[in-house]
Order: sequence, then structure tokens, then C-alpha cells
Amino acid sequence: MGKLSDKPAIADLVAICAARGLKRVIISPGSRNAPLSISFLGHGGFDVQVIGDERSAGFIALGMSQSDHKPTILVCTSGSALLNYLPAVSEAYYQRIPLLILSADRPEEWVDQMEGQTMRQRGSMSNFVNREFHLPQEAGSADRQWYSARLVNDAITATHWPKCGPVHVNIPLKEPLYGQIEASPEPKIIHPSISTPGLPSNYDKLKGEVSEAQKVMVILGLDKTQSVSADTLARLAKKGVVILNETSSNSASPQALSWIDRTIAAIPESERQAFVPDLLITAGGPLVSKRIKTWLRNEKIAAHWHVDEVEAEKDLFQSLTCSIYCAEGPLLEAFASDLPESDPTYLHRWEELHKKVLHSHDDFLSQAPFSDLKAYQTILEMIPSDSIVQMANSAAVRYVQLFPNRPDITYYGNRGVSGIEGCTSTAMGLSTQVERPVFLLSGDMAFRYDGNAFWNDLRPKNLKCIVINNHGGGIFRIIPGPDSTDHLDRAFEAHQENSAEKMARMYDLEYRVVSDEPELKSGMDWLIASQGPAILEVFTPREKNADILREYFEFLGQ
Amino acid sequence: MGKLSDKPAIADLVAICAARGLKRVIISPGSRNAPLSISFLGHGGFDVQVIGDERSAGFIALGMSQSDHKPTILVCTSGSALLNYLPAVSEAYYQRIPLLILSADRPEEWVDQMEGQTMRQRGSMSNFVNREFHLPQEAGSADRQWYSARLVNDAITATHWPKCGPVHVNIPLKEPLYGQIEASPEPKIIHPSISTPGLPSNYDKLKGEVSEAQKVMVILGLDKTQSVSADTLARLAKKGVVILNETSSNSASPQALSWIDRTIAAIPESERQAFVPDLLITAGGPLVSKRIKTWLRNEKIAAHWHVDEVEAEKDLFQSLTCSIYCAEGPLLEAFASDLPESDPTYLHRWEELHKKVLHSHDDFLSQAPFSDLKAYQTILEMIPSDSIVQMANSAAVRYVQLFPNRPDITYYGNRGVSGIEGCTSTAMGLSTQVERPVFLLSGDMAFRYDGNAFWNDLRPKNLKCIVINNHGGGIFRIIPGPDSTDHLDRAFEAHQENSAEKMARMYDLEYRVVSDEPELKSGMDWLIASQGPAILEVFTPREKNADILREYFEFLGQ
Ligand SMILES: Cc1ncc(C[n+]2csc(CCOP(=O)(O)OP(=O)(O)O)c2C)c(N)n1
Ligand SMILES: Cc1ncc(C[n+]2csc(CCOP(=O)(O)OP(=O)(O)O)c2C)c(N)n1
Repeated sequence: MGKLSDKPAIADLVAICAARGLKRVIISPGSRNAPLSISFLGHGGFDVQVIGDERSAGFIALGMSQSDHKPTILVCTSGSALLNYLPAVSEAYYQRIPLLILSADRPEEWVDQMEGQTMRQRGSMSNFVNREFHLPQEAGSADRQWYSARLVNDAITATHWPKCGPVHVNIPLKEPLYGQIEASPEPKIIHPSISTPGLPSNYDKLKGEVSEAQKVMVILGLDKTQSVSADTLARLAKKGVVILNETSSNSASPQALSWIDRTIAAIPESERQAFVPDLLITAGGPLVSKRIKTWLRNEKIAAHWHVDEVEAEKDLFQSLTCSIYCAEGPLLEAFASDLPESDPTYLHRWEELHKKVLHSHDDFLSQAPFSDLKAYQTILEMIPSDSIVQMANSAAVRYVQLFPNRPDITYYGNRGVSGIEGCTSTAMGLSTQVERPVFLLSGDMAFRYDGNAFWNDLRPKNLKCIVINNHGGGIFRIIPGPDSTDHLDRAFEAHQENSAEKMARMYDLEYRVVSDEPELKSGMDWLIASQGPAILEVFTPREKNADILREYFEFLGQ
Repeated sequence: MGKLSDKPAIADLVAICAARGLKRVIISPGSRNAPLSISFLGHGGFDVQVIGDERSAGFIALGMSQSDHKPTILVCTSGSALLNYLPAVSEAYYQRIPLLILSADRPEEWVDQMEGQTMRQRGSMSNFVNREFHLPQEAGSADRQWYSARLVNDAITATHWPKCGPVHVNIPLKEPLYGQIEASPEPKIIHPSISTPGLPSNYDKLKGEVSEAQKVMVILGLDKTQSVSADTLARLAKKGVVILNETSSNSASPQALSWIDRTIAAIPESERQAFVPDLLITAGGPLVSKRIKTWLRNEKIAAHWHVDEVEAEKDLFQSLTCSIYCAEGPLLEAFASDLPESDPTYLHRWEELHKKVLHSHDDFLSQAPFSDLKAYQTILEMIPSDSIVQMANSAAVRYVQLFPNRPDITYYGNRGVSGIEGCTSTAMGLSTQVERPVFLLSGDMAFRYDGNAFWNDLRPKNLKCIVINNHGGGIFRIIPGPDSTDHLDRAFEAHQENSAEKMARMYDLEYRVVSDEPELKSGMDWLIASQGPAILEVFTPREKNADILREYFEFLGQ
């Protein structure tokens, strides 16, 4: 261990983080946070990055923690710096990604006294953190030092228990800030030991109800831990259960019907009722598909169970009848083993529709002109095995749902609150933590928004950005509504004749642009082979994309 | 009036804003906020801008409102978009700039139900707004419509009463969102009529105490309303009162000693006590000078009055004895008229020191090599009469305090919480509202941080950016401490070999670079004559700047 801050509570904090297994730290420069910066750098046991823009730093941390579900530490100075983390923190909260946010603060007696860079930091993240802590100001006495160390231990535990998420520790610091000593603190470490959750106590009753139901459907949403195995899904399907998932569930299985959007679009109006489950089991986080929400909220579902270890009370379809506080993996596995064979009519109905849609999909795409839809097809087919796909918000994440859920790819997307401000930074952070190639699929607006993602020294070789440039927020040409107003171009699409080339130059990134199918194919070859962060920009026909997608859905419905 | 949203409460809201005199609106694209966007654009009575990055939009709004102290309206979609406003909102709160933040929200029953782009928006700005409101969801009945309209009226009033500041109105909106009708709503308008505050009731007692004090000092901090006239200051000086101010007080007067930092640096150790006031009167917002805070907090001041209409309880020097809830302009004017002539010894002592320092300052600068200090001198001398200077945070705002407070210039700076994330956007917003040239003085890091300030169609011709490029956070080489660690370059200065040229290319801005005194002079001529947003980049010697500033202060102290 090298030199640490001479403030005992800060030296302890850093030693506790190390002892509790935290490894990654992102520091944003400042003076008030000097004791923290000095100590994390001096300690030697941390992988420390320095990032200037705290908003981008927040999303980079989020991306890092997406990779392994371990907390990344964020360190900032006093004042508004902290507030720049909030977009990433809200996303992490709803996506349940652990982050440990350490904000330096001025001594609390100076808040609201016109002191420089001083504001009400306490409580400013309350809505979006698992817990928040305020360290005691002067940890001079043994009691105070124990108190501070205990809070730091609690804070680390709260990043992953009872659920993963961000935790805010506000740290008032008095001058002098730069004192350093050779120190090997041996602070209090409290090890959490957490019981493995078993099946629900009324498991037999639940099993009985599943056995009796005629039409059982399982829907899997956002889930980065791949908690339901392909084997479990296959065995459930054998028992007649219909499984719908989305790419971001990362639970690919040949038996799972992963194209929710396109399949639902094809349900004939007259047969809708036959497709409605009488028992619906949901697990995992938010769903991308708007169609399934609209559809199922309009139907009567006799029973809906939501399964989640800590937040099983979510009632996404307004039909919740039972909250099962339990891990989805073991529960579904148990059902897969214990359920009797059952009438496969319901499953077959879905499978048939699904097959029909697959043909229509192929038919349509084989003759579709170059467009967003066509480009996504080519891209998703060409992404190499064992890659990671980071789907930016807006159209990207929606288009991806129309194509096969490839089991050889891991899909991530910031679907907690679906902001567009940090998608590139998230991909950036993620790609520093893995060897596998990371493909960011982004619209031009989101990509431009988060240009500061590249304002750092990270430069991961495996980051490959694909920017679908339809000159603005193409999504607003797809969803119904904006085109009925006089303000589509300006207030919704925010039409702009931009290109990512200038950004590539600004940050010395490899860059190539394509604008038709053959170019895209060779562009993909180039991108796959590229070293260092690289951008492939795909120009698509701004005015045609929406029509082609509309025709696609109409075609599926025929 | 053109087409408005068919949601009566939204049509009313827009009509109330118009009737209450609000003019400026910044919309960030989104779908949930469509009823608001449609209506503000359709109304025809608003100056509407569309800005993609909500963080930058927040600071642009702040800059706009700095110009006239009237609220700018911010409109965003649901989800994290709102949180990107927070850095600007916290700055506006402590700088007391009125902003009306209208966030579209999903219906409240969908919060925490895994619904897309939905989060706990209510209360997420509590720490930094004058008030917050949540509009009723369905304003179908007459009662609900009255309620909603009343809240909107209250919200507008709360942007300027009892003090100016940001106000958050959260607006849950149900689909369909895009309905429009030709409408001329005649909503309820409540006009606030606010009493003109008079002198404090115990004015005579206060006046008596001022008359009796031997050493009276007035310090003026941040104040954009120029509430104390030069005439008042001149008359106070005639009565023997010492007046210290900072450029950002915008209360220039030949009698005011505006170089707080450099003058204090020159007080001989043995005479310190003689310079301490026995009655200190402060008014205005935060002070930049760290020296004066450190000095006065260490001295015994018999009486300290802080004067402010609403927040006179601030105890910046830990010596507050009386909070005077009253406007500073009228109070100081009354003192200027009513005080008897008094012993000028104290004033003369300050004036002499001030004169001596002025000579030392001139001597030092006449032979100082090219550096940050020298560059600021040249720049500040060459800025034309009737300009506005926007001082970015970090070294810029500190250096400016070392030079004469020019009465022909208006100075602004984000000194509420002193973040570096929005200085350029603030200058951008400000320059769209004035005809006068706006000179942004910024460091290279702050400038790069806020590159998105240019990601819009504003392009004001009068915006002239001066980027002092010392390759990182030069401030961390100036303040004592960082250089005593092993991490100065990396964790504090964040050393980077960047240039603003690429940013200029990215945004098609005029650009010139200089790196010595003669070049700087012709560069300034070029910048002054330039049309359209232009950047003058000034390279200064990274490793020498701090030494030169240190020598400067030592020289003053001799
Ligand atoms: C922070 C934030 N602001 C605004 C939005 C609303 N929004 C959703 S998609 C979108 C447009 C994105 O455009 P682009 O990245 O070009 O993708 P495309 O729609 O073309 O696929 C906007 C502004 C948001 N989700 N997050
Ligand atoms: C949002 C935010 N993050 C961090 C800081 C801490 N900080 C203050 S000054 C500074 C460096 C600014 O560097 P530059 O703009 O180049 O100006 P210079 O110091 O060279 O004048 C930093 C990081 C801050 N004030 N605000």
C-alpha cells in the first residue's frame, strides 16, 4: 500500500472498499475530493480512471458494472458535479446495477451560507438510490471512526442487498485536504453473508394452479444475469408453456418466441382471445415491446404472477393477482421439473403463428429496399458470434426486437429509464471490462448527445459503434402522432444534417460511412476487423424508413 | 392563436404563461411532452428553441434569464431527461435566476411499475427549487381545470416571489398525446401585486450604530440587478465607508475598491487589525475571493449585518450579528444620505494600500512574461466598451478579479454552485438575448466539457469565446495542495494535449489560435471584428502560469 490521505476515516473507507472486493474507481477531477482521489490512487489495489464529464463518468461506471454486476465507485467533488451523475444513477436504479457514489462535500455548517461550490447535496439523489449515507464530519475519536467505518460497510452491502442498485455516500471534508501518510489501516470490516432464497412456502399450491391452467404464458423482460437457463425454458415448453422473451432478457432458447412485437402484430383480430393466457407468469425487468403492453392491458387475464426476489409487486398489465417474492431461476426450474405434461393446443397456436410470421418476415425483407429495417437485418446477421450488443435507446432497441434472439450474443440496453444521454458512455464502460467485441447500435442523435463518451483515455480496441443516421430522431416518424402535427421536423424529429465524421475526427476514431446494402456489408467487415474504437456510420433514407416499417407490420398482419 | 393541444389543462397552461408575460421556451424533443411542445409552438406568442441536450438546454435557459431576470420555460419528456436539467437548476437556485421547468410525466399510477421511460420525477428537484407542483392528472371537470390553472399561476409567481429561482411543475399526461384543436382558451389568470419593501422598522437604530462605528466596511457580492448605484457608493465613500466589491457585483464605482484579492494579499502582517472593520455590511450573492473569507473568518468583527430581502440569515464570515431583511439598494442609499460625515482614517488606510498595490500590480505586469495572468490583462484591456463578460468557472473568474472592475462592462459568472459543466451554454443563452457582444472567458477543460453548447441552431453572431488553453485544469496548479501529491497531472489537472480547433471544425465556428502577446493582441482585434460564434484560443505555458501568479502575489505583499 502506498500513501493514503491523512484523514483516518478516508484511509479506512478506501481500505474497506478494497477488503470488500471493490476494484473499479472513476474519479472526476476536483479539489474537495482530493483525500479520496489521493487514497484510491495511492492504495495501488484499484483500477482507477479519470473522467472529466461526470455525466459520462456515471454511464461509463454503469457500463462497467453491467459486465459483472459488481459495483463501480464514482468519486466527485462538491457542488453540481454530483448532479451530473443523476441520469446514470436513475438508470442504474431501475436496471438494478450496483454503483457506489462517493461525493465530497463541504463541511455541513457551510451549506446555504453562500460558500463556494456548496449546495444541498444530502438527499439530492434520494429518489434513485437504494440507500444514502452521510459520513460523520470529524472522525477524530474511536467512536466516530467506528461509526464512519460501519456506515461504509453498510453502504457497500446496500449496493447489492436486498437488491442491486446505486448507493450514495456524501462525505463532508474539512481543509487541509492534501495531507498524505504511509498508512496500512486495518479498519472494521463487516462481511455480509446472505441466505440463498428457496422456493415460496406455498409452492405446492402454485404448482397446482399452473397444472390446472389451460393457457400458461411466461414473459421474460430485462435481465442481465441470465438467470433462467435455456434448458429450463426448453423443458417448460415441453410442458406446453408459451414463452415470450425479448433480446435483452438474455434467455435465448429455440423454444422461446423472442419476436414479441412482430408476432403480436400478426394475431388475427378474430382470434385474439385464443392467444390470451389464463395464467401469465412474468419475471425480469422492463419490457421494450409497447404492443404487448397495449394488448395485454386490454385483455382479461384470469391470473398474473410476477416473480421477483424483492419487488414482485409490479403490476405491468393491470392484472396482477399474486406477487411471488422469489428468484425466477429456481422457481421456473422447479416448475419445469414438476409440472405434468399438458395439452399443447395453446403452445401450438403460438408456434404456428410464429412460424407464419417468420415466413412473412423473410418474404418482406428479401424484397425490402435499403432502410433502417433492412440495415438492422444485415447488421444483426453479420455481428460475429460471442459479441456483445449495446442497444441505444430510441429505434435501435426496438428494431433489434424484430430479429432472432441470438444465443451467441449478449444484449444490453439502458431500459431502466430509457434515456438517450449516456448510451455511448455505457458501451464505452462495458467494453473496457470485457475481451469480447462490443457493438453499440445507436441513432445519430443519441450518438451526438453523448459525444463526451470519448473525452477520456479509455480507447478500448473492442468498441465498435454503428450509427444509424436518419438525420434526427427517426423514432418520431415511426410512432403515430408527431406526423399529425405541423411540428414533426422541428420539435420531434429535430431534423439535422449531421454526420459522425467530424466527431470521429475530433476524437481520432476510425471511421467509415456507408449508404446502401453492399456498402454496409463491406463496412461491417471493416468494422469487425477494426482495432481501436471505430465508427461505422450508416445513412438511411430519412423519409422512407417509417413507411417501410409500417408496410412491414401490415404485411405481417395479412 | 394557432392550434393548441386538445388537453384543456395544457392549453390553459400555455395561455396562462402568455398572459403572465413569459416569452421564452426551450423544448427538448420527446413524445410524452408533445401536448406542451405542440401548444407552445402552435400558440405563436413564444420564442421557442429546440435543444437536444437537456443539460445544455438548462444552462442556455439560465443564460437567457440572466439577461433580464425573467423566467425561461424548459420543456422536457418523461424519464431521465429532467435530471439533466439539475446542474443548471442548482446553479439557478443559488444564483436566484427564475426558470419554469415543465416536465412531462407518465400517469402517476405507472411509476415504479416497470413502465418505459418512467421514474420518480416528483420531488427529484426538491433541494433546488423555490417550489414544486404536480398538476392533476385529468382536468376534465371545471374544478380540476380551476385547480390546474391555479397551480400554474402559483408556479409562475413562485419563480420570482419571495425570491427569484427555479420552479418545477411535473405534468402527468395520458395518451393520446397528439390531439390538436383551434383554441383560444380564456383561463383563470391571477395577477400578483407585490408590495415595495421599505426600510427596516428599526432603521433609526441601525443608522445610529453605523454613525457610531469607527471602521465601516461594505462588501458587495454577486448581483445581476445592479441594485446599488454608483452614486450611492460614491456618497457612502464620502462618509468614510470602505467599499469592497467584485466584478460580478456589477456595482462599479471609482470609489469602490474592486480588487479584493490583490489588495488583501498586500496587507502587512503587522497592520492586519487596523484593516478589520468594526461594522461590516454585506449584500449580494456569493463572493469569489477565497482570501477575504479566510481573512475575515479569522478576525474578530464586532458587528456584521447581512442585508437581503429574503435570505439575510447567511453568516459567511461566522460573525453575523444582525440579519436585515430589506433590499440593499434603498438601505444603502438611505445610509448614504443620512449618515454624518465621519473620520476618514479607516478609508484612507485602505485607499493608500490600494494605491500602493495598483503600482505594484502595474510594475509586475509590465515585465511579466506571457502567461495566464498576462493574457487576462491584455484581454480585459481590449474588450470593447459596452460588452458583456461571462466568466467561466475555475481560473477565469479568479483572474478577472485581479483587474479593474470596468463600469462599461457587465460581468456574469455561474457562482451559485460554480460548476464547470455549463459555462459555454450559459454564454450561448445570454448572447441570444442581447445585442451587445458577449465574451466568454473559459479554461480549456470547461470549454470541452460543454461542447454540446453548440449543438443547436442558435449561432448568435455576438458570441465570442476566449479559451485559455493551459492543457487541463490549470487551477489545480495554482491552489496549494495538488502539487504536494504524486497525482497532480492525472487526478487534478487532468493534463491533456487538446485544442479547441477540432471543436471549431465540428461546429463550423470561426477559429484562431495565438500563443504570445503580439499574437493575442491581433487575435483580439480579429475576435472583436468577427461575425458569428467565434473562438480565440490562447495557449499559455502550462508549467509556468502558477509560478508567475505566485510571484505576483509575493510581489504585492512586499
Ligand atoms: C435524455 C433523453 N432526452 C430525450 C429523450 C426522448 N427521445 C427518445 S428517442 C429520441 C430521439 C433519438 O434519436 P436517434 O438517437 O437519432 O435515434 P432514432 O430515433 O433515429 O433511432 C429522443 C429525443 C430521451 N429518451 N432521453
Ligand atoms: C461539474 C464540475 N466538475 C468538477 C469541478 C471541479 N473543477 C473546478 S475547476 C476544474 C478545472 C477546470 O479546468 P479549465 O476549464 O481548463 O480551467 P483552468 O483551471 O485551466 O482555468 C474542475 C475540474 C467543477 N467545478 N464542476
